[in-house]
Amino acid sequence: MTGSTRRVRVERITVSADGEPGRDGRPDMLAVEEPVQISVLSSVSVSADGVSGSDRGTDISSLTMRTPGHDIDLALGWLVGEGTITGIDDVVGVAQRSRGEGLDRAASVRVRLREGLAGPAGRAFTISSACGICGSDSIEAVRLRARWDVESDRCQVAASVLMTLPQQLRERQATFDRTGGLHAAGLFRADGTPVVVREDVGRHNAVDKVIGYAAREELLPLRGHVLQVSGRASMELVYKAIMAGIPVLSAVSAPSSLAVELARAQGLTLAGFVRGRALNLYARADRVT
Amino acid sequence: MTGSTRRVRVERITVSADGEPGRDGRPDMLAVEEPVQISVLSSVSVSADGVSGSDRGTDISSLTMRTPGHDIDLALGWLVGEGTITGIDDVVGVAQRSRGEGLDRAASVRVRLREGLAGPAGRAFTISSACGICGSDSIEAVRLRARWDVESDRCQVAASVLMTLPQQLRERQATFDRTGGLHAAGLFRADGTPVVVREDVGRHNAVDKVIGYAAREELLPLRGHVLQVSGRASMELVYKAIMAGIPVLSAVSAPSSLAVELARAQGLTLAGFVRGRALNLYARADRVT
Repeated sequence: MTGSTRRVRVERITVSADGEPGRDGRPDMLAVEEPVQISVLSSVSVSADGVSGSDRGTDISSLTMRTPGHDIDLALGWLVGEGTITGIDDVVGVAQRSRGEGLDRAASVRVRLREGLAGPAGRAFTISSACGICGSDSIEAVRLRARWDVESDRCQVAASVLMTLPQQLRERQATFDRTGGLHAAGLFRADGTPVVVREDVGRHNAVDKVIGYAAREELLPLRGHVLQVSGRASMELVYKAIMAGIPVLSAVSAPSSLAVELARAQGLTLAGFVRGRALNLYARADRVT
Repeated sequence: MTGSTRRVRVERITVSADGEPGRDGRPDMLAVEEPVQISVLSSVSVSADGVSGSDRGTDISSLTMRTPGHDIDLALGWLVGEGTITGIDDVVGVAQRSRGEGLDRAASVRVRLREGLAGPAGRAFTISSACGICGSDSIEAVRLRARWDVESDRCQVAASVLMTLPQQLRERQATFDRTGGLHAAGLFRADGTPVVVREDVGRHNAVDKVIGYAAREELLPLRGHVLQVSGRASMELVYKAIMAGIPVLSAVSAPSSLAVELARAQGLTLAGFVRGRALNLYARADRVT
């Protein structure tokens, strides 16, 4: 996990049980947050005489604050979520670059799409309308973009398996243990077998890294899989799960109202407050036995 | 807090201490997440013959997922963070609209700027560069945008006061108690007196609502104030504090590396892991006594 943590000197102030104040300098480990630029390039067609045209250049570019590591998976997972790619076959090349040291470190990922694919048109929830934006519009936008039918996935997951996932996630969170500052996302098979766990300062980034890994491993669509996240379930995470074909999203904490609405509209099983010996099911409870 | 929570029916699965499974339906309260469209409009100048020109229309529009409530403050606080306005005097009109019910509810806020002000040029961390983006670029962008000098603020805060703020924040979190699903931000005076507490599904929104409130109350710049947040401190939150002239940011959980770098570069006091009888100081520890 090189590059995902950074040591800094802090002053720690404590008050003992009998009110005695203490103050000392000590080292502390931080989760690294740094920008990465993701550029998406279209491929040009080869002309009839066999001469390929020149590059059209960068079609779209996105700047994201993330924890360094697995940047290529981050980029691929983001493009799955945008509906731009449905698998690694849609990508003809990926290049990663990182220069400089410390704060001057500049990172970028360039993804070249296969011929005929257009770059991402913008996020589902940045749909624009002159006459008003509402939750229905957001849900409709997701429905139009979804490439796989999550609703028809017939997988079954035991509640006893779901209850083990937060602990499994926690055991694989190498960086959280040192910094206390990272979100995690983990992909599991329906029987609880772990596939991959990723950490990031941004919860959506952790999910993108997991889905990008699955894309590289040619596992999409992720039928019969469970996505476990360490925190809350927002509409954005439900959306990303649906775009990767994942039928079950499980969160340690609470879902938002729009997360529940979207899960119900798209037939995704949504579990929340998955802790110890209890959990809540907010949508498609029939998949949980 | 009408509109910030929504009741849904959930299935709750439990396993008793002796392994007996239980399953029942019950109502659950969710934190509402819904989109709001924020439109920013420039004012037109009045021509020499006294006839004002027609509106130039919407200069910029932003769609944000947020918890309904305090939408005008959300918009104003966001514009302070963008460096577009430095107080309520920069705004000549605000209009809020909400139509429909439930999922079909569409919300918008329109802010008209005073003559001569331009709309937001884009977020500080979406700076674009062909030759690479790094943490230094982000910090430089904030330095160029900051309207007030946080570094020179001579306020002093007692560590014993900082240690009370998470509990004060928690006591004022009306919606969290019912949903377990909201971030909170609170503004306090250096002696611990509360000014305002706001909640939202997005931590940056909770901070925007606090700063927007302060803008409306003509409290900017917020010299001698402390911003307490319920979760982690990202670079974005440090940035928003600096843009509002707040000298001390205190987080219940961990800061990121870039949050610490930016706080040190701009002279903001950054406290983390503020819990019970201990806290860590990551930048400008000299303000804490």
